[in-house]
Amino acid sequence: MGIVLGPNRYGKAETRVVRVTRSGGLHGIKDVNVSVSLSGAMADTHLTGDNAAVLPTDSQKNTVFAFAKKHGVETIEDFGLLLARHFVDSQPTINHARVEIHEYSWDRIAGGHSFVRNGGEIRTALIHSDGDGGAESVVSGLRDLVVLNSTGSEFHGFIQDEYTTLAPTDDRVLATAVTARWRHRGTETGDWDDSYRAARHHMLHAFAETHSLSLQQTLFQMGRRVLDERDELCEIRLSMPNKHHFLVDLEPFGMDNDNEVYFAADRPYGLIEGTVLNDDAPHAASAWE
Amino acid sequence: MGIVLGPNRYGKAETRVVRVTRSGGLHGIKDVNVSVSLSGAMADTHLTGDNAAVLPTDSQKNTVFAFAKKHGVETIEDFGLLLARHFVDSQPTINHARVEIHEYSWDRIAGGHSFVRNGGEIRTALIHSDGDGGAESVVSGLRDLVVLNSTGSEFHGFIQDEYTTLAPTDDRVLATAVTARWRHRGTETGDWDDSYRAARHHMLHAFAETHSLSLQQTLFQMGRRVLDERDELCEIRLSMPNKHHFLVDLEPFGMDNDNEVYFAADRPYGLIEGTVLNDDAPHAASAWE
Amino acid sequence: MGIVLGPNRYGKAETRVVRVTRSGGLHGIKDVNVSVSLSGAMADTHLTGDNAAVLPTDSQKNTVFAFAKKHGVETIEDFGLLLARHFVDSQPTINHARVEIHEYSWDRIAGGHSFVRNGGEIRTALIHSDGDGGAESVVSGLRDLVVLNSTGSEFHGFIQDEYTTLAPTDDRVLATAVTARWRHRGTETGDWDDSYRAARHHMLHAFAETHSLSLQQTLFQMGRRVLDERDELCEIRLSMPNKHHFLVDLEPFGMDNDNEVYFAADRPYGLIEGTVLNDDAPHAASAWE
Amino acid sequence: MGIVLGPNRYGKAETRVVRVTRSGGLHGIKDVNVSVSLSGAMADTHLTGDNAAVLPTDSQKNTVFAFAKKHGVETIEDFGLLLARHFVDSQPTINHARVEIHEYSWDRIAGGHSFVRNGGEIRTALIHSDGDGGAESVVSGLRDLVVLNSTGSEFHGFIQDEYTTLAPTDDRVLATAVTARWRHRGTETGDWDDSYRAARHHMLHAFAETHSLSLQQTLFQMGRRVLDERDELCEIRLSMPNKHHFLVDLEPFGMDNDNEVYFAADRPYGLIEGTVLNDDAPHAASAWE
Repeated sequence: MGIVLGPNRYGKAETRVVRVTRSGGLHGIKDVNVSVSLSGAMADTHLTGDNAAVLPTDSQKNTVFAFAKKHGVETIEDFGLLLARHFVDSQPTINHARVEIHEYSWDRIAGGHSFVRNGGEIRTALIHSDGDGGAESVVSGLRDLVVLNSTGSEFHGFIQDEYTTLAPTDDRVLATAVTARWRHRGTETGDWDDSYRAARHHMLHAFAETHSLSLQQTLFQMGRRVLDERDELCEIRLSMPNKHHFLVDLEPFGMDNDNEVYFAADRPYGLIEGTVLNDDAPHAASAWE
Repeated sequence: MGIVLGPNRYGKAETRVVRVTRSGGLHGIKDVNVSVSLSGAMADTHLTGDNAAVLPTDSQKNTVFAFAKKHGVETIEDFGLLLARHFVDSQPTINHARVEIHEYSWDRIAGGHSFVRNGGEIRTALIHSDGDGGAESVVSGLRDLVVLNSTGSEFHGFIQDEYTTLAPTDDRVLATAVTARWRHRGTETGDWDDSYRAARHHMLHAFAETHSLSLQQTLFQMGRRVLDERDELCEIRLSMPNKHHFLVDLEPFGMDNDNEVYFAADRPYGLIEGTVLNDDAPHAASAWE
Repeated sequence: MGIVLGPNRYGKAETRVVRVTRSGGLHGIKDVNVSVSLSGAMADTHLTGDNAAVLPTDSQKNTVFAFAKKHGVETIEDFGLLLARHFVDSQPTINHARVEIHEYSWDRIAGGHSFVRNGGEIRTALIHSDGDGGAESVVSGLRDLVVLNSTGSEFHGFIQDEYTTLAPTDDRVLATAVTARWRHRGTETGDWDDSYRAARHHMLHAFAETHSLSLQQTLFQMGRRVLDERDELCEIRLSMPNKHHFLVDLEPFGMDNDNEVYFAADRPYGLIEGTVLNDDAPHAASAWE
Repeated sequence: MGIVLGPNRYGKAETRVVRVTRSGGLHGIKDVNVSVSLSGAMADTHLTGDNAAVLPTDSQKNTVFAFAKKHGVETIEDFGLLLARHFVDSQPTINHARVEIHEYSWDRIAGGHSFVRNGGEIRTALIHSDGDGGAESVVSGLRDLVVLNSTGSEFHGFIQDEYTTLAPTDDRVLATAVTARWRHRGTETGDWDDSYRAARHHMLHAFAETHSLSLQQTLFQMGRRVLDERDELCEIRLSMPNKHHFLVDLEPFGMDNDNEVYFAADRPYGLIEGTVLNDDAPHAASAWE
């Protein structure tokens, strides 16, 4: 039996760029982390070390910086598309580009050029492109959106097997750190920022407004709300750890605990992962990879 | 020469408590991480393993939960004082308690019981107590307050030695992740929340309003502003990494870079640490330890 | 257009189990981190919150502990297979199980019951099972195997585009933190430990013995060596960050730097990902997911 | 009341240097992380932004690289002393230097130039110097030495208060991640490597050989053993989190658990910190800061 090269990709990961814009005395900043992965005619570099088809990852990094200057970084979706298309269109040996960008957001403090980071939450974009005229996809998303409902959550009616000791409950804390990614129908959304703000808003409100019988139900409601409200999106994938908050037993100390004092556990945690999509969603191809 | 036991302390670290309060349908949450360290007559447990003087760290954890129920967690400063005094006053073998609390803050989403974590920044309190009638101290603070000025910062006129290659600059990005702790004159501040918000506000505004010739100057201005404005405080210690943002050289690509595109570096980083205090500040004793 | 539930799974992640065995006074320990994900007839819990098909993640955790007692943890591959089959075979609503296990390794210090953790490297196993008589797969692997060649690595002959500034080199440091996973042809390998030790050994030696013209070439050689030497394996996937070590320019200080002093950079980094496989490898199905 | 500048220091943190040595075809590497902090006549830079007394942190970084070339990195203690003395002796405005170095260790794979990182454990050195003829101190140490005894540990006879629920035990798992630092009597130890290996060895063996009635007792025995065996050392400080391993209750599943299956918890954890010293130890001055 022979040994062959299978799927592969390479690139420069985590180029940290801060782009400053100025409009008179008013500055703006975009703070992003750009990861590029290219694939194409890469057999030789693997098999013989011949690098004639390889655009160095160092050049990819330089391109990120140069494009930040030349084109600015209006939205991470558009910036990712620009970069991905550039690599495929400018290099005959590259036939596919994947660009993932994380964006850290900042608030203004005062004056025109002072900023404070707002939060642990990260906005994300994942772009795939086969270049001009080829297949393309845009997946937007966020990570580390930590939410908690202090009531309005139940869990009962589940399977009882020989290893089940969990008591059913009709009132628990439900907390999770949402990682969500949503796929756009096309690559011409028009207003990526508006789309992002809306998706985030609807997820948060669906989380708050769902009386939950399971975290799965909450997940589905969050995904459904986003798709219901946003026609430019066709599919959403959510990964939601169940960050367990255990009611502390205070009885040994002569106290009741009417859902007031919780221990926030680290591990293990439940992990709920699910997809919600339109039944007419176009084929995803490599969009999620 | 003999071998002897020196300073020591022990306790339960990082008890993660979430305390829910309800006022009709309106819930509130306090999300804290409590670390207790006790010291006292602990020679025997070290030298012979006789634990007659040892309050188990497990009991300390239970106490944190029970106190969260009994007293609530209004502010981390008051909660820390309660706990610290309790351990010393209730145990003859314990003569000193140190309680450190981190608080994670949450915003309301909608409705009365839904919350979203706001930001990576953490509020801190460090309490020391020798018990009722003994010495006590309260240090409040914050961690991971990430700020950036995109202009208004210079650095020149420094020493040139044989290893100096840095060019002087009259316009650079200044960015840092502030860890700040400020010492209260007494333990009866009245309104810990108001004091915290004000200290944070003044630091942020001093950062924004200082035309900076060095990060040290900015640090001092931030500390001075807080002490100028808040009579209940007498000393502040700041640790400010200089999160370098290097201007990218785009000349090889035929572009200038007029302070528009920066590379945000990870390591190494400058680290500026300093203390600002009132000249009549009371003795700090163990307050900072 | 309708909105529907797509692929989903749920389970208990990161159950941390330490299993002690005793043979007379000689103890042994297995230290593992077990993550279970189940899928099946889960529409109701998502759509209506009816949990009749849901085996709680808490019961999954209990099962992990109970199986560690009942069956021991001889190898993570066998333990994962046992768990995965159990969930599918015992629950009519579960038709697929994914079990991922990380193992931390320990060396003996002295005596029969004292151990010291050896290293940052983690052994991994990823098991998929459709239950008794159904499709199954076993992928073994490791993470965080950090290796470095201080010479014997070149990089030249690459594409020059308008953003290329990298100089070709015929002598550089090559360093990476290997994440590798290899797929077994079947689920009856016989000696998982021997297979693991051999795969690790061959990867290390291929890394050391390859005169490298690109990290891709080194990756392929590592994968090929493993498949050449181990008939029970049919495919290997490697992810290898190029942990850049930049030669420091000491000329401003009147010194040369003949490949002696390097700056170890954090970000950005190259990221090389590739697959090596036998041309008769059976279909992978969900093995890698 | 006036506002004044208190204690302060500044420097370049975490300069990551890899130093390669060659002896024929046999290479060696030293992989270190160097943090410098200087103090002296720094009032002006804080109060007015006049930097005439400031040696830039960038120059400090350059010095680290240049010294790695010029002097090599034989041991982190000697390298730290060289650097610390250099900064104080060469700059009139600097009167004190603190240098902290972390070292990552590597094993040989095969051949003369291939290495694999061994373990998560880090060797440390903390140097203070007032320059030629002034006070100096050397503290060596390690971090993240994770050890576990699967038996031979008891805990009972402790205080029972109203919040105590812990059951006494005469057989538990004892596990900790040791951070230890030991102070040398002088700065001329002769063989820092031998001293380090011996201190580590004696700590490990004292951990293994102590039948423990409390983690405090184990800590003291570890410290005492090191001082007993090594005359060049005079004081040792240990910080040992009690990494709790809870015996899992398997009774609901009809199983006993005779110290075989443990849950390794993350938080909270006990934290035991203590000092062991010779009664004739010289004054520590700033050695530990």
